[in-house]
Amino acid sequence: MSYYKTAILYDPKPIRTELDRVVDFWLKYSHDKEHGGFFNCLGKDGKVYDELKYVWLQGRQVWMYSRLYRTMERFHRPEILEAAKSGAAFLQKFARVQASSGPGKCAFCLTRDGRTVKVQRTIFSECFYVMAMDELSRITQDKEMQADAESMMDRLIFWVQTDSSDLGRPQLPGDLPINSMAVPMMLLCLVDQLTEGRTDVAEKYKDLSGWCVERILQHIQRDGKAILENVTLNGKELPGCQGRLQNPGHALEAGWFLLQYALKKGDVQLQKTAVDKFMEIPFHTGWDKQHGGLFYFLDVDGHCPTQLEWNMKLWWPHCEALIAYLMAYSHSREPVLLDRFKQIYDYTFTHFADEEHGDWFGYRSRQGELVLDFKGGPFKGFFHVPRCLYMCEKLLDGLLERQDS
Amino acid sequence: MSYYKTAILYDPKPIRTELDRVVDFWLKYSHDKEHGGFFNCLGKDGKVYDELKYVWLQGRQVWMYSRLYRTMERFHRPEILEAAKSGAAFLQKFARVQASSGPGKCAFCLTRDGRTVKVQRTIFSECFYVMAMDELSRITQDKEMQADAESMMDRLIFWVQTDSSDLGRPQLPGDLPINSMAVPMMLLCLVDQLTEGRTDVAEKYKDLSGWCVERILQHIQRDGKAILENVTLNGKELPGCQGRLQNPGHALEAGWFLLQYALKKGDVQLQKTAVDKFMEIPFHTGWDKQHGGLFYFLDVDGHCPTQLEWNMKLWWPHCEALIAYLMAYSHSREPVLLDRFKQIYDYTFTHFADEEHGDWFGYRSRQGELVLDFKGGPFKGFFHVPRCLYMCEKLLDGLLERQDS
Repeated sequence: MSYYKTAILYDPKPIRTELDRVVDFWLKYSHDKEHGGFFNCLGKDGKVYDELKYVWLQGRQVWMYSRLYRTMERFHRPEILEAAKSGAAFLQKFARVQASSGPGKCAFCLTRDGRTVKVQRTIFSECFYVMAMDELSRITQDKEMQADAESMMDRLIFWVQTDSSDLGRPQLPGDLPINSMAVPMMLLCLVDQLTEGRTDVAEKYKDLSGWCVERILQHIQRDGKAILENVTLNGKELPGCQGRLQNPGHALEAGWFLLQYALKKGDVQLQKTAVDKFMEIPFHTGWDKQHGGLFYFLDVDGHCPTQLEWNMKLWWPHCEALIAYLMAYSHSREPVLLDRFKQIYDYTFTHFADEEHGDWFGYRSRQGELVLDFKGGPFKGFFHVPRCLYMCEKLLDGLLERQDS
Repeated sequence: MSYYKTAILYDPKPIRTELDRVVDFWLKYSHDKEHGGFFNCLGKDGKVYDELKYVWLQGRQVWMYSRLYRTMERFHRPEILEAAKSGAAFLQKFARVQASSGPGKCAFCLTRDGRTVKVQRTIFSECFYVMAMDELSRITQDKEMQADAESMMDRLIFWVQTDSSDLGRPQLPGDLPINSMAVPMMLLCLVDQLTEGRTDVAEKYKDLSGWCVERILQHIQRDGKAILENVTLNGKELPGCQGRLQNPGHALEAGWFLLQYALKKGDVQLQKTAVDKFMEIPFHTGWDKQHGGLFYFLDVDGHCPTQLEWNMKLWWPHCEALIAYLMAYSHSREPVLLDRFKQIYDYTFTHFADEEHGDWFGYRSRQGELVLDFKGGPFKGFFHVPRCLYMCEKLLDGLLERQDS
């Protein structure tokens, strides 16, 4: 490892500057001062090109603002707290569907003034609702809001572990329940959120986190050589495209969730698995050796995935990879992990960051052309980019501190 | 118009040869001799890479085989009729959902042995079911099958015009019903199917075809300068991305549906509208002047569409364009329409046809790279390519006949 690399990589300044610019962009362009909450669809220059509000993204933005406010001194600013509160109020008022879709079901998409446009038959709107309310309530000490988060969490657990019929998905004879990576990952992330600094809550969710870890580990397949996105409920490979699907970005995200959990628990074996399986495998299978960047989807047997966007380079897998490799390096100091970080860092900053208007682009072709030029859209909000920069800044600060001491 | 062009284009031989090769490919690779029906997911060499059966594609393949058998002497072969019958039997046995999804609702996707995997809350599985049963029953003179098609058609009309609650879509306050191009297009196509050679049925659906035409014409927007994919039920522009969406391939397909209808009716004004609005506008807005080919989606105000595949070149818009321009030229003999045909023809045959294994590729990047290399997938079956070649061969034969006479 050269001095140059060390010097560059232990310097959090570029990351800090980038985080400031990203926060400024969303503070400036995304707030809906008339109806509350946030505009999600922002063009490359921040201009709103659609007024729909996506519940995942509303919840994530509340969480991110609150987390920055709570844990980074320079973001401890009234305007950031006010924005988080505005988003939370919008969600509490409008996110729950006023229909027969079961108790507490949240919408996926709302009109600017909060009318339900679309409801997904999944758990993710509810997950981001929990993250938002829990994080904000840690600042405001609002016990009702914290209870709202916890009761939504308990409903989520019921849907996932006991009875999913309230989600509104019909039981179909050819559609057996599967273990999709997103569900245990998301729940493990929520447990981490809810239990921070609370031993009683940690005790309550102890079994759940064990369950999540077990479900995540079931995605290690093919004699430990592949991470598959979907497996059966007892951890076997599924037939067809669904079974062969690989999503390197998701595997990497699961990797740092697992590593974070294993570090807290002091579980050395799980730390090793997180790195060896959920970070090394997706790098080797997912990195495009010809054009650089991480593919979005791959088929483990080398068939062509059926997703039209399979070979595109999306911003978020790169964000997850940066967190994963820096967290892993921070812990183990294995030089190869720093090399991975550096490689992803170079690709990411040259392909996604936007010096002109701020915030990041999200979607490039395999070859690197910009395909979609907006900063915010139905699935891109104020979340993956600032979370990545926030996590990396914290990790780099940690590395520096330890170097100095 | 040069002699060269005339000579090439009035010669149906290359198109005939290509149609033969496409039919051979699907006859050889797609038949499921064990469970009946067809494999849909075929690799570039015909190998099955997933066993799921998509009801749209099953219905379309039954229709196409039956239409070829009934109307083209060289396809009047027992194996083709048998395949159509096998597909129809599979659909009659398995397509209808055995659940609470309302009477007659068809699945979207089935396992190889016919168990329901997925149900869409739309009308399209049912539409292709009607096409399949009606066309096959014209050969077999099976009155029960014909009645099955007609009763499904009547149910469709009820869903679209009277009460859609059986489709299972919840009524949501922010999701008002819209006029989406696909619905009136598809119904007009079905009326054309069901009424061929039957004056009593034509009388029955007379009002419906008028309704379809009116609904399609509502998509002409912006003072006649744009065809928009989604409008309000009274023909106004919708807000946001949904309202600004253009789908050039869909507009062109609607164009030839309209032209076909207008030619039958002898409606000169509608013939002109079909060509001027639904063929010229999508060509001018949809053709990629830099790399050639038709874009998949565009935003009428030049914003970036939010669909990740917006700038890809798909096979089917090109198929629809070939039919549209050749039909329009056949009728009017306007040289510019033959030029359009030629331009699309050259792009299509150099980008989608596969000399090595037969059948066509479906998905290229904006720049022309092959992105997905399979011949059959969840949305690509034995339909757009053979229907295009079949229609073009018929149109070219017609042009030759008239030239000779």
